[in-house]
Amino acid sequence: MSGLLTLRGASRAELEELLDFAQSFVGGSVIHRGGAGGTVTTVFFEPSTRTRLSFEKAAHHLGAHVMSFDAPKSSTAKDESFRDTILTLTAMGTDVFVIRHWLADAAELTAAWSGRPVVNAGVGKREHPTQTLTDALTLRQRFGHLDGLRVAIVGDVGNSRVARGHLAALPTLGVELTLVGPTPFFPAVDPWGVRKSTDLDSELGDMDVIYLLRIQKERGSSAGIPSERGYARRYGMNEERLSMLKPTSVIMHPGPINRGLEIDGVVAEGERSLILEQVANGVPVRMAVLSLALGERR
Amino acid sequence: MSGLLTLRGASRAELEELLDFAQSFVGGSVIHRGGAGGTVTTVFFEPSTRTRLSFEKAAHHLGAHVMSFDAPKSSTAKDESFRDTILTLTAMGTDVFVIRHWLADAAELTAAWSGRPVVNAGVGKREHPTQTLTDALTLRQRFGHLDGLRVAIVGDVGNSRVARGHLAALPTLGVELTLVGPTPFFPAVDPWGVRKSTDLDSELGDMDVIYLLRIQKERGSSAGIPSERGYARRYGMNEERLSMLKPTSVIMHPGPINRGLEIDGVVAEGERSLILEQVANGVPVRMAVLSLALGERR
Amino acid sequence: MSGLLTLRGASRAELEELLDFAQSFVGGSVIHRGGAGGTVTTVFFEPSTRTRLSFEKAAHHLGAHVMSFDAPKSSTAKDESFRDTILTLTAMGTDVFVIRHWLADAAELTAAWSGRPVVNAGVGKREHPTQTLTDALTLRQRFGHLDGLRVAIVGDVGNSRVARGHLAALPTLGVELTLVGPTPFFPAVDPWGVRKSTDLDSELGDMDVIYLLRIQKERGSSAGIPSERGYARRYGMNEERLSMLKPTSVIMHPGPINRGLEIDGVVAEGERSLILEQVANGVPVRMAVLSLALGERR
Repeated sequence: MSGLLTLRGASRAELEELLDFAQSFVGGSVIHRGGAGGTVTTVFFEPSTRTRLSFEKAAHHLGAHVMSFDAPKSSTAKDESFRDTILTLTAMGTDVFVIRHWLADAAELTAAWSGRPVVNAGVGKREHPTQTLTDALTLRQRFGHLDGLRVAIVGDVGNSRVARGHLAALPTLGVELTLVGPTPFFPAVDPWGVRKSTDLDSELGDMDVIYLLRIQKERGSSAGIPSERGYARRYGMNEERLSMLKPTSVIMHPGPINRGLEIDGVVAEGERSLILEQVANGVPVRMAVLSLALGERR
Repeated sequence: MSGLLTLRGASRAELEELLDFAQSFVGGSVIHRGGAGGTVTTVFFEPSTRTRLSFEKAAHHLGAHVMSFDAPKSSTAKDESFRDTILTLTAMGTDVFVIRHWLADAAELTAAWSGRPVVNAGVGKREHPTQTLTDALTLRQRFGHLDGLRVAIVGDVGNSRVARGHLAALPTLGVELTLVGPTPFFPAVDPWGVRKSTDLDSELGDMDVIYLLRIQKERGSSAGIPSERGYARRYGMNEERLSMLKPTSVIMHPGPINRGLEIDGVVAEGERSLILEQVANGVPVRMAVLSLALGERR
Repeated sequence: MSGLLTLRGASRAELEELLDFAQSFVGGSVIHRGGAGGTVTTVFFEPSTRTRLSFEKAAHHLGAHVMSFDAPKSSTAKDESFRDTILTLTAMGTDVFVIRHWLADAAELTAAWSGRPVVNAGVGKREHPTQTLTDALTLRQRFGHLDGLRVAIVGDVGNSRVARGHLAALPTLGVELTLVGPTPFFPAVDPWGVRKSTDLDSELGDMDVIYLLRIQKERGSSAGIPSERGYARRYGMNEERLSMLKPTSVIMHPGPINRGLEIDGVVAEGERSLILEQVANGVPVRMAVLSLALGERR
């Protein structure tokens, strides 16, 4: 593995080994000084404080130095090209890059330009692979296994990096995915041949997991739906729908949530919700991924 | 103590013990690695670089990891609610929160939502308790005691978090407070029954400490006064007024100062001024407060 | 040495000793914990992420704590004066200041106000001394010596902090400087009595180093030239000009580069280019300078 650009093509054994390694960091508030060391550089061309802080905390626990490059308030103001930014940060001593960018190729380009391991923290309309691993780990903790779990991904799958990562890896791990939402939300091209449904209510009784995606107003999700109110009525997770689930079923969401839109607050904070477990598992998953990436550099 | 939300209700013994503990960190540029450890998360919904840096330096000296959440450039841009921000940062591994917010209940809410110790770094129109402790420590260092000290707080008390903290704690420590300023600057409601005066000049000869508040133009302080020039003439601390003080009396100000408005530069930097001692003491006071808060979490 | 304000007046022996010390940090990704310790405060009144990150990485490698004071998003919003900012950061426990400011006297003023060692990271129209040391180190690594090297500095010397530092120190180290560019780009006053040329092409065959300056549109460099295209045609470093150099000659640039203006991308990334070596050497040079400055404080 050279950093983590994509989960596509990863075998079941590789994914499970990665989850095992991540699990070994759970609960470890111990700082692994004398551990990996090195320098992790976060390069965010789109703001995402929660993802950045999660990576930086993971790097800190590994004893690594963090350089934070935030595009808007930096040398891009002088028109420094993306390529030159990466070459400069590499020369300055970056061991591993963590990159978020609106450009789909940004992670691959960074890897090619820098010759360093790169962790994709969300690029273009591609994956957000550490979120997918986090969610897989969270499910495995809850159910003890992933094999045969029925997961409905509800929302704007076509615009979702999270869904793209889930489609790339969860079926490999034995998960049965169903995409749920209004037709305009389904991906235009579907190489996965995954099951789809426009009727959430008819799916609820069969699912182990209702995975809600954020309606991303800033990415034009709203354009695919007649109205937010209409969406909430048909696809929003509320108490009534919660009562239609099997007793063991759970609710997930990658955050940040829109309360009252794709999920009601009482559901998000209810005992069926794994949302905060997802957040918590983000740190050990990123520790595992960064640890491997830093290890390559030694 | 669960973090530090308020100084109201604290006993004299409790306050003195806290000051003793803070004093033990004075001059200690030594880094207490292997000390408290843990993660301190600063959440600033209003900018205040000096307060944030002081808390972060204190956390660093205790060997803690710092997560800085600055509201404006972060996920609030995606409308993440304050509550969800706190729940997320908690799940991410926050041990202690340090919070500044325009909302009066922000610190209590954070404590309730997170179940973590919270240090109030200035909320709504409530207190800024670490500033009050810092000032108390500074006075104790200078006078050897607090009992019987006469302190005039000059300025917009009604809008001042600093004054509110002083009113909550300094009388308990034996300090005799007098509020000085134009009538519109006095608090609308006065549960403290504290002495007031609109005539600074007649007070100068009796006071041990002239504690000047910042005219906070950004909080509308100016609305209470006919003109800045008029205010400076009646209440600004200048060399002439300095000469009317007792030889042992001192000048304090929580910063940042408005030179030529509530205080002349020559006074702020004169030998009677304790302003920089106040800044310096901010770090050991915050080390003490964070150390106790982190200790609760172990 | 009290920090590093200027290279003017430094003797050859002093400069060479400093370069030797910097060289000792090259390749040292080892963290010198238990090393200098202390607190390094970066105060940037102009944004420059690459310079700030380079200093902060150097400080980290020395085991120092870093406080980052970014002017725009901080207490200057409350009109805190520059002087008060420095006095406050000093009282808060700064051991060494690193300062960038539009004001020419900013570094000297900071040193005078704080009584602390100050490293000039670019002020007014003065020097950017750590860049000059970085470039000298890079040249010494490449050529084995500096004595007798012929260096052409091409561009807006009059507005360049980098050129000003080079003029202050490189001749002392035995370098023969030539300034190249359109007449309006030469400094209005020339105390150095340095050789000048408006014709780059006639110089190429004689030079060991072509040192290209950035056309700083944000500082009005463009005002001195009829058009960017015309400048690129006469002074831009392209493959054709590269072929006119001696086989051992090299290209340098302090970055960030304007591709297609003062330098073509293919030249910047060609094997003659030392640009990334310059970036890499920035860290050990700053480690050396900060290490000495921190040492003064112990």
